Amino acid sequence: MSNITKKVSWSSRGDELGAAGEGTPLLNGSEQPRHSRQFSEGGSLFQIGRLSTVDLEEEISAEEEAARGQPREIPHNEKLLSLKYESLDYDNIENQLFLEEERRMSFTGFRCLEISRWLICGLIGLLTGLIACVIDIVVEKLAGYKYEAIKQNIERFTEVGGLSISLILWAVLNFSFVMVGSILVAFFEPVAAGSGIPQIKCYLNGVKVPRVVRLKTLVVKVCGVICSVVGGLAVGKEGPMIHSGAVVAAGVSQGRSTTLKKDLMIFEYFRRDTEKRDFVSAGAAAGVSAAFGAPVGGVLFSLEEGASFWNQMLTWRIFFASMISTFTLNFVLSIYHNNTGDLSNPGLINFGRFESENLNYNLYEIPLFIAMGAIGGVLGALFNVLNYWLTIFRIRYVHRPCLQVMEAMLVAAVTATVSFTMIYFSNDCQPLDSEHAEEYPLQLFCADGEYNSMATTFFNTPERSVRSLFHNQPGTWNPLTLGLFTLTYFFLACWTYGLAVSAGVFIPSLLIGAAWGRLCGIWLASIASAGSIWADPGKYALIGAAAQLGGIVRMTLSLTVILVEATGNVTYGLPIMLVLLTAKIVGDYFQEGLYDIHIKLQSVPFLHWEAPATSHWLTAREVMSSPVTCLNRIEKVGTIVDVLSNTSTNHNGFPVVMQVSDNDEPAKLCGLILRSQLIVLLKHKVFVELAGSRLSRRKLQLKDFRDAYPRFPPIQSIHVSQDERECLMDLTEFMNPTPYTVPQETSLPRVFKLFRALGLRHLVVVDDANRVIGLVTRKDLARYHLGKYGLEELHLAQT
Amino acid sequence: MSNITKKVSWSSRGDELGAAGEGTPLLNGSEQPRHSRQFSEGGSLFQIGRLSTVDLEEEISAEEEAARGQPREIPHNEKLLSLKYESLDYDNIENQLFLEEERRMSFTGFRCLEISRWLICGLIGLLTGLIACVIDIVVEKLAGYKYEAIKQNIERFTEVGGLSISLILWAVLNFSFVMVGSILVAFFEPVAAGSGIPQIKCYLNGVKVPRVVRLKTLVVKVCGVICSVVGGLAVGKEGPMIHSGAVVAAGVSQGRSTTLKKDLMIFEYFRRDTEKRDFVSAGAAAGVSAAFGAPVGGVLFSLEEGASFWNQMLTWRIFFASMISTFTLNFVLSIYHNNTGDLSNPGLINFGRFESENLNYNLYEIPLFIAMGAIGGVLGALFNVLNYWLTIFRIRYVHRPCLQVMEAMLVAAVTATVSFTMIYFSNDCQPLDSEHAEEYPLQLFCADGEYNSMATTFFNTPERSVRSLFHNQPGTWNPLTLGLFTLTYFFLACWTYGLAVSAGVFIPSLLIGAAWGRLCGIWLASIASAGSIWADPGKYALIGAAAQLGGIVRMTLSLTVILVEATGNVTYGLPIMLVLLTAKIVGDYFQEGLYDIHIKLQSVPFLHWEAPATSHWLTAREVMSSPVTCLNRIEKVGTIVDVLSNTSTNHNGFPVVMQVSDNDEPAKLCGLILRSQLIVLLKHKVFVELAGSRLSRRKLQLKDFRDAYPRFPPIQSIHVSQDERECLMDLTEFMNPTPYTVPQETSLPRVFKLFRALGLRHLVVVDDANRVIGLVTRKDLARYHLGKYGLEELHLAQT
Repeated sequence: MSNITKKVSWSSRGDELGAAGEGTPLLNGSEQPRHSRQFSEGGSLFQIGRLSTVDLEEEISAEEEAARGQPREIPHNEKLLSLKYESLDYDNIENQLFLEEERRMSFTGFRCLEISRWLICGLIGLLTGLIACVIDIVVEKLAGYKYEAIKQNIERFTEVGGLSISLILWAVLNFSFVMVGSILVAFFEPVAAGSGIPQIKCYLNGVKVPRVVRLKTLVVKVCGVICSVVGGLAVGKEGPMIHSGAVVAAGVSQGRSTTLKKDLMIFEYFRRDTEKRDFVSAGAAAGVSAAFGAPVGGVLFSLEEGASFWNQMLTWRIFFASMISTFTLNFVLSIYHNNTGDLSNPGLINFGRFESENLNYNLYEIPLFIAMGAIGGVLGALFNVLNYWLTIFRIRYVHRPCLQVMEAMLVAAVTATVSFTMIYFSNDCQPLDSEHAEEYPLQLFCADGEYNSMATTFFNTPERSVRSLFHNQPGTWNPLTLGLFTLTYFFLACWTYGLAVSAGVFIPSLLIGAAWGRLCGIWLASIASAGSIWADPGKYALIGAAAQLGGIVRMTLSLTVILVEATGNVTYGLPIMLVLLTAKIVGDYFQEGLYDIHIKLQSVPFLHWEAPATSHWLTAREVMSSPVTCLNRIEKVGTIVDVLSNTSTNHNGFPVVMQVSDNDEPAKLCGLILRSQLIVLLKHKVFVELAGSRLSRRKLQLKDFRDAYPRFPPIQSIHVSQDERECLMDLTEFMNPTPYTVPQETSLPRVFKLFRALGLRHLVVVDDANRVIGLVTRKDLARYHLGKYGLEELHLAQT
Repeated sequence: MSNITKKVSWSSRGDELGAAGEGTPLLNGSEQPRHSRQFSEGGSLFQIGRLSTVDLEEEISAEEEAARGQPREIPHNEKLLSLKYESLDYDNIENQLFLEEERRMSFTGFRCLEISRWLICGLIGLLTGLIACVIDIVVEKLAGYKYEAIKQNIERFTEVGGLSISLILWAVLNFSFVMVGSILVAFFEPVAAGSGIPQIKCYLNGVKVPRVVRLKTLVVKVCGVICSVVGGLAVGKEGPMIHSGAVVAAGVSQGRSTTLKKDLMIFEYFRRDTEKRDFVSAGAAAGVSAAFGAPVGGVLFSLEEGASFWNQMLTWRIFFASMISTFTLNFVLSIYHNNTGDLSNPGLINFGRFESENLNYNLYEIPLFIAMGAIGGVLGALFNVLNYWLTIFRIRYVHRPCLQVMEAMLVAAVTATVSFTMIYFSNDCQPLDSEHAEEYPLQLFCADGEYNSMATTFFNTPERSVRSLFHNQPGTWNPLTLGLFTLTYFFLACWTYGLAVSAGVFIPSLLIGAAWGRLCGIWLASIASAGSIWADPGKYALIGAAAQLGGIVRMTLSLTVILVEATGNVTYGLPIMLVLLTAKIVGDYFQEGLYDIHIKLQSVPFLHWEAPATSHWLTAREVMSSPVTCLNRIEKVGTIVDVLSNTSTNHNGFPVVMQVSDNDEPAKLCGLILRSQLIVLLKHKVFVELAGSRLSRRKLQLKDFRDAYPRFPPIQSIHVSQDERECLMDLTEFMNPTPYTVPQETSLPRVFKLFRALGLRHLVVVDDANRVIGLVTRKDLARYHLGKYGLEELHLAQT
């Protein structure tokens, strides 16, 4: 059963990798103190008495069961914190090697680095824009063929009867596309499922989500999103752009691809988490920018979701990447549409032009907007609650890839059937005039020169449907059509989100909101005095779309800017803000945002902006992990190998201390070294005894660490002979001699602030004589959160 | 002469206050180690050997001269760092009192706090919006009367001759208004001069600019800006709104006014620098929002200029304040204009509606935009260089308030004369048609039914002129008129910025840029093929305005959003971004931004985003100040009084250490206490000996510290009797027991990152046994900056 829970998690596939040794979940800091085996041979390793008062009963019993060979299922739920996620190092490891390099570097050198950063950002924007183009063009083409085929088929069979054949054709087409997309995702790269936004949020937050920024993920994501959109699912292609941009950024900035085994030998300086994160922010922003034609919104998205430390230069580079991205998309699409130079396609979705003169709003409409925001908040919370239950269900029962594919195919078939049924039974016929030319007007049972307006909504890519809802003339839909459409699409979208397909939730949310928003508009127009133009259904469709999206994802600032940029009109800035703020406040009362729910269900140790308000009574001493496995400044190779091989602890960072006596007394801190560094040292056999013979060999350089980044080999792959075990390793040059520390009396909020603001991975807790007594890592802080009734503590779990 | 330099500085008036003892510049950390007198009586106070290698020769000789009673002038220039600026404490002082309060507070208590934060932000928005209304309405009214009077006068004298009387009338009117404004600023509140943006930048950065957020400053600012705009100076009323918003925020959030001696006894929790700063950010954003109708731009401005740690909740509150502010302005102005409910006045400046259909841009125009950006960068740099020299000149020679008033009056008269001359000699007559109704069309020597188009540009508030340049029909101005106007206005604006009047530089910059941009447009239209509509002069005016403003102030992201929001049209997003980015890159090549120049000329210890790239070779040991004046955990009152009274050191923060021996050995750190806290303790006579007798008296609470905040009395005002000097004070409860520390080997960038990200004021440098060996304060970090040829070190000066 433990495999099961792994299967549906983002990092799944633990079974295969676990055997290979690489993917073994490595924890940071010391965990499960009561179970850690103590290596005390040679007295060089010591552990300090446990001071933590945290009750770990529950997961310990779970572990004991696991130890007895009967893995108990630990359900994913929001009260658990998974120990399988590693952290990223957003704090530079300022060891001697690093400082020497920095000191050697001239002013011009730094200039060049800065220029390459700009170049890389430009490249990120360019490639992200191109990927958006590819997705857009392929989706348009394929969807065009599909709808054309079905339309002809329907038209053929409308007269002669036998529309069930059309239904089957439609269902089969959807079915096949979705199957391909789903197989790709479920079997090849499960992390490419969904929009990727929660994963990118986690990455920017400092959590290492396995394989999230790999090339393979990108390929699967792009193909997957094309398949699911063409397959007619209630999904959008916008969310995945953010993930795609992030992968592009992570790839380009490293100057190599580990998947393709190609190293261009450039940008080596950027091969560390700190720099990579900055570029990934830029990539995510470029993705948003390409998706919505919203460069400023992209920057804000990156900052709102990711950044902890706002740096002006970084912001500008991100902005630059966003700009290039939307421009590339715009330019290439203008060529593709034989309209070179007409820059009217800034994003994958265009809300179309809102003519401001007849769409101005009045003061008395503001309460209406706020009310719609509240409706959006309630509906959004409902969506999230339903999706939450569904996700729990999926985690429990729909875990095997083949089941996931089957579910996706089922959804595809149901979507087609429902759409068809709705179109079939709808008798909302509208005159077909030249003014608003539908792409695929379906006459069906309507009179000549008319078309079925329900069909327009379903029989289109969702992006086009949104645009129609915003801009079509009043009277294009009758209220019943819209009502039914809202209802079905709401449940379809809710069911679809979380399937093993690459797809986003932005467009379905907008579509649902636009539908009920337009409904509101029609209703308002009907009660308003005749001749008044204020109750334009298109305007209310926009407001509804904003409310629904806000109610589901709960972003405010960035979403406002994204929507305003997508609308191309600042006039609606204030209403959109009000609506989003209301939707957020109302929605938060019931349930969290959709992305946060999914992050919680994955039990990710996600650090929020601040420590819980009521956590001042906790101090570093209470939250830290102890005892800490420390290393000596000059340490025996055998000890290091044993520490690293200890699968029950799997520490990732080790305080380096002065030589201490055998008894388990705390020793003075003199540095911090990471597992990855030790691995590289062992691999290159940097032993004191070999130093003499190494005169001919070159000194270990930063380059060696960078070459191994980010996939450091597992300790099992490094062979250390029995003789070598007796050698010594001098860590002085490689450890970070100035790790950040806090005294043990520091309050949790203070620890949290330091940890979060500087993006730390390990924070050493020391006593008043600078002796190591504990280590605070991400999970120690993420464990405390504010529940409905005050401070709650999550349980740690080895899922 | 030393008075002189003080006079023109932001905090001037040091002469009066210095005598009173309050305004005495208090330094943080320990300065001028070679001059610090050592108190070593009782062995309770010790100093640690100086390790700093910084050469302080220059200012030492200056001080020696000063000591000899011959104050040598220390010119303000960018190579100096003033020691007179205090820092703000953006790090919470988590002492026992604070922690007890936090722990006592329930979950509901924190909820209430959060709600009051939102309330305060709403109030800040409301008041800022109302202030903007007042300014707008008063300026419109007064300027209307003025122009009407002059127009009638000119019309009367055009026929009969004797226009010199009109000139005199005009000059005298301008003269009088500017005189009033200038007297207010120069004599009553010099810190209200200029736009206040550099001051707010400094405040948000953590520098305490004296009196910058006081009520008196606000009053002077508002009256001053009305006078200078009505006085016809080349200034805008937008920049000062930012300062006004900040003052409103600082006032409202504290629930009291020290100036009015009124304490509402609410919001006491927010009486500390951390909370106050957050509200000031909101106020600044609300100011931008009201000035430009740009709520998102306001948030970005606050973040770009101020924030170091991006907090989502904070951002939303800031956003809320911005929203309320622009909405209030909009609503009140709609009532004022008898058009209730029509929300078309979101800001003080409206760029008017750009009709997008005929103002779309083409791809081939983008190089043109970039070229204009480059021109803007060059012109902006020229503006800044000229203003830099002018400011140096002013600092040297125009220092007395009366001289400043005279200069302002001179500028007012010259502005009127120049304008008049230009109008007089202009023969650019345009037909007066109903389409673009000028407010004050001046016929002058034109034929009947025509008006003088040069007059339109000058004879208007600058906001209206900008709008005319953007929107008037092609052909409204002939190129010569525009060229002359650009030239004269450029120099007038440059001369005006830095006068002792409250005024902003945004509008003049936009006006200059719009003028030459329109010129470019006209020129392009003349070389373009006839009938092509792309070279619309209005569009190029907008681009020129963006380029010029960007070239002068060098903001990118926030300015893009501000301009896009002010334009009300996202279409120009991309061109504006490109233009601003180009202007910044080109401009930065020559000279810094205008605000940065003024900050540097004030020698403010301003912390930039990152430490200089080439500063890795510096460590905490080299940059720290030492020896440090430390206090014992239980300290003699006499010693404390002596330490605090020592005017030669004026330390603001004192590490508290364990009891040490007489020899000057470093002692173990156990906390940090601030001067302000010690003052309160002394004032309340919290002595160990009195503890018994204090059984009846209440215990010292956080409230006592908050009541004294932010104007703590000087030590001189506290009387301590000879008996009391022998008493002891127990600091344990009041000191911050967990100050952030760094080891002495930490590199400067690492120290900088910690200091900047957490908004620290004092960072204790410890050795490997946690013993205090130095203290890093703001000036120690701000001292290093990247010059043209690598790392430079600023000299510290007592100006």
